[in-house]
Amino acid sequence: MADILHRVGIKSSLDEVYKALTTREGLAGWWTEDTKGESKVGGVTQFRFSEGGKDIGGFDMKVLELRPDKRVLWEVVDGPKEWIGTKISWELKQEDGFSIVMFKHQDWKEPVEFMHHCSTKWAIFLMSLKSLVETGKGAPSPHDTKISNWH
Amino acid sequence: MADILHRVGIKSSLDEVYKALTTREGLAGWWTEDTKGESKVGGVTQFRFSEGGKDIGGFDMKVLELRPDKRVLWEVVDGPKEWIGTKISWELKQEDGFSIVMFKHQDWKEPVEFMHHCSTKWAIFLMSLKSLVETGKGAPSPHDTKISNWH
Repeated sequence: MADILHRVGIKSSLDEVYKALTTREGLAGWWTEDTKGESKVGGVTQFRFSEGGKDIGGFDMKVLELRPDKRVLWEVVDGPKEWIGTKISWELKQEDGFSIVMFKHQDWKEPVEFMHHCSTKWAIFLMSLKSLVETGKGAPSPHDTKISNWH
Repeated sequence: MADILHRVGIKSSLDEVYKALTTREGLAGWWTEDTKGESKVGGVTQFRFSEGGKDIGGFDMKVLELRPDKRVLWEVVDGPKEWIGTKISWELKQEDGFSIVMFKHQDWKEPVEFMHHCSTKWAIFLMSLKSLVETGKGAPSPHDTKISNWH
């Protein structure tokens, strides 16, 4: 098993970061504009991506845990086969005036090339989350920064 | 053991990317301006970072492998204790008109919080490498994008 790890600090309250991770508007503001569903424990949120107006798929996340200002946990229930069954956790804490986000996309079966890509892309989206919360403007898909031929 | 993985694609020849990874000028153009040493097998390259004009340490990398346009391998011989003994590999290949960089910072003893930070920061520096090669301008330290209270 292999994990993708990241850490960013956001100049904001924990509450603002938590909202960006747990509301449709928040998620649509930094990850993908095409976000559907409610963020409640046991519910499923659907994230879809497009490229030049063309649907290129996405992810369905079951919400396993919602602890306000502390932790969010998702399980991937639909999407690319490498993602299904993996979990994504968000741990929040305050430090030096920053809301620290500890991110983990865990339990990849193999460290495949696609995992390398997703690791870099998660960093890009975490910077988009930071920007959304700090400035009000993120860079969600389809406006996300492209990193390679795999977008 | 845990690894940091990344993948970016750069619109350039493999040779240009290889040069950015194996010359003092190249490395100083995307990672840190304070880069010293020659990139030759068995040699040590020194990377130092500063923050507000203050030295905040850095890394000494022993070059283990140099395969033009294919692979570069470093071993960390000095730096933060979590880094010492870890290896950093760069695999290059051409795909769809991009030079693909497969990056691995391998053999971390534990997935500590600092590893989360370094993973995100590597993504930032890989985007700096991409920018340097594609546009002639990277964002090496001390001009690097800050991601948190840990810089």
